[in-house]
Amino acid sequence: MSISKEVVQALSSVLTFKDGLVPLHAPVFSGNELAYTKECIDSTFVSSVGKFVDQFEKMLAEYTGSKRAVAVTNGTAALHMALMLAGVKNDDEVIIPGLTFIATANAVAYIGAVPHIVDSEETTLGIDASKLDRHLSEIAEVRSGECFNKQTGRRIAALVPMHVFGIPLDLDGLLALCEKFSIPMVEDAAEAIGSFYKGKHCGRFGKISSLSFNGNKTITTGGGGAVLTDDDKLADLCKHMTTTAKIPHKWEYFHDMVGYNYRMPNINAALGCAQMEKLDDILASKRKLAEAYATAFSTVKGVHFLTEPEGCKSNYWFNTIILEKGMEEERDSVLEATNGASYMTRPLWAAMHRLTMYENCPRTDMSVAESLEKRVINIPSGAGILGV
Amino acid sequence: MSISKEVVQALSSVLTFKDGLVPLHAPVFSGNELAYTKECIDSTFVSSVGKFVDQFEKMLAEYTGSKRAVAVTNGTAALHMALMLAGVKNDDEVIIPGLTFIATANAVAYIGAVPHIVDSEETTLGIDASKLDRHLSEIAEVRSGECFNKQTGRRIAALVPMHVFGIPLDLDGLLALCEKFSIPMVEDAAEAIGSFYKGKHCGRFGKISSLSFNGNKTITTGGGGAVLTDDDKLADLCKHMTTTAKIPHKWEYFHDMVGYNYRMPNINAALGCAQMEKLDDILASKRKLAEAYATAFSTVKGVHFLTEPEGCKSNYWFNTIILEKGMEEERDSVLEATNGASYMTRPLWAAMHRLTMYENCPRTDMSVAESLEKRVINIPSGAGILGV
Repeated sequence: MSISKEVVQALSSVLTFKDGLVPLHAPVFSGNELAYTKECIDSTFVSSVGKFVDQFEKMLAEYTGSKRAVAVTNGTAALHMALMLAGVKNDDEVIIPGLTFIATANAVAYIGAVPHIVDSEETTLGIDASKLDRHLSEIAEVRSGECFNKQTGRRIAALVPMHVFGIPLDLDGLLALCEKFSIPMVEDAAEAIGSFYKGKHCGRFGKISSLSFNGNKTITTGGGGAVLTDDDKLADLCKHMTTTAKIPHKWEYFHDMVGYNYRMPNINAALGCAQMEKLDDILASKRKLAEAYATAFSTVKGVHFLTEPEGCKSNYWFNTIILEKGMEEERDSVLEATNGASYMTRPLWAAMHRLTMYENCPRTDMSVAESLEKRVINIPSGAGILGV
Repeated sequence: MSISKEVVQALSSVLTFKDGLVPLHAPVFSGNELAYTKECIDSTFVSSVGKFVDQFEKMLAEYTGSKRAVAVTNGTAALHMALMLAGVKNDDEVIIPGLTFIATANAVAYIGAVPHIVDSEETTLGIDASKLDRHLSEIAEVRSGECFNKQTGRRIAALVPMHVFGIPLDLDGLLALCEKFSIPMVEDAAEAIGSFYKGKHCGRFGKISSLSFNGNKTITTGGGGAVLTDDDKLADLCKHMTTTAKIPHKWEYFHDMVGYNYRMPNINAALGCAQMEKLDDILASKRKLAEAYATAFSTVKGVHFLTEPEGCKSNYWFNTIILEKGMEEERDSVLEATNGASYMTRPLWAAMHRLTMYENCPRTDMSVAESLEKRVINIPSGAGILGV
């Protein structure tokens, strides 16, 4: 049997209920979503002021164990703010993985900084710490507690690990590098709500980090994101910057810096509160699905189902299969066959260094990312599949 | 009787129902807001894909008479995009009024361009075309169809008139200037949904323009904005830029420029559709309120109630009283007395040239703006006051 047929068969064995298209990741609204939304509309507080914004931030902080959470319009805005708050400035370099969603690179570009693109590892799809160590040892130097790229002369102002599809990456390895080369870590945990690295929530290892609640995420607020930090000063500044930097006053309109309109509206936060109440159930359902996939794909030759690393807990946001090396040419036929059978699947993003606007950025050898791009496929992953 | 008491009395004569605080502008949800929101939640399409986004854009285009409308996260994002699409670049100058909400200046700053701040006129609170003509005649020169500031050497890439509180400003005067000095007009119509200049909707005079649907606006989507243009190419590019610049493909993730995540979520657009259905009723109610205020304040000496200019229609977003010159010292006591009597009122924004981050920007004499700042007061204006 062809590999495409085998993959379709494995999917069928898990997704037995199928009636029409199985989306990659539809949200599940089985709780108070409508009730809280109604409360917003009844109270007329649908916009940037309202109790659900505060409540959502509290729930996020409590769940992740972060001292503070600041809700914003989306994950891109959250990372933009996190990078600025970490001190990234115009003409700095920021280390990002090639394998990530475009928002990671764009958030760097918004500041006028330059993405420094690095390769990933096959086990977690995250930044390869050993390869990065060798690279930095070659091109970086630390002067007065800051890291500089000797080749470009620019400061390397941050390292942004991204937990791909919710799989926690090698944080110990990268934290050691951050220490060694004096680079602040800013975690892009956009895909990682509900993922834990050695018992601690992803996004709590950097100085500051970002989450996303886009419609396709584990939980959603329509569009939304959040900044996490244990630093009260940074959190206060984040709130200030994302709410147009207006100085509190009973009626005066004074602003003390170039601020942003990145406020999460109350009606979106209302959805978020209802989703947070269901997060444990959603995660349990997704984990059950991942386990079923692991079993189903264990007998499919040439296909590896990606599981969480030892000691870590993945939210299994997007379940992922990886074709063996040598099977690169099968990827598109698997995508065709699965989508043709109404199982929505998709490949990895094009790696950042392959996009016109980032192709001239400094980077490492990108052979692993390029190889993974040709072999990774996401399969249906929503919590609605097995129910919440 | 003191002026404060007289103002409170005039407010009382109009706001006869008062029971508790009368807010400056609460939204009114008397239509399909909950039904459409429920539809989003039931369908699971709460995020960036969904029928309400398309529908809201169509309703906006139809209502304003614009060929196209592109819905985005808020008015700030809309103006940011409108300026980029009008060709504003890093280190250009953009003419903006000193009397505006901070978003106008910030949108310029996001591009790395410099606000060039100009004075306003007392009649509309908008940019004073005659004063600007004299200023440009002194400092500007046109070379190869583009305008340059002779004093700074920078290109003047756009003129951004802002219709303050929904009062249409002197568009004829400013359009003539744009023609004379070869400066593209980008209208900031954030406050002007439902306002018409000589029969044509505000925001349809520039090359491209922005609207806002923040919670305090005439209609709201929680947070939201839109870009208006008659140019299909600009509208398509706007949609592309605001949706991460992803190239359409059944599964590949390729992006061809540094894009933005400025998508309006479907659940916010659902509110917008319901609000658009009620817009005429909302405007009628607000007009009735303005008329009542006009009568009530006609007998208050030293206080002028601001009305729409001849041939124009204001949405009367924020109703406005202006104290006579010489009464600047009364402003704060009027604010204290009215807020103390639970009528929410507020002064103008601090003019842009008075804010630290913009105090060194090029500008005209700002005497009118500075005088107005000390005399303008907004009074309760929501459509809920007289009902919809």
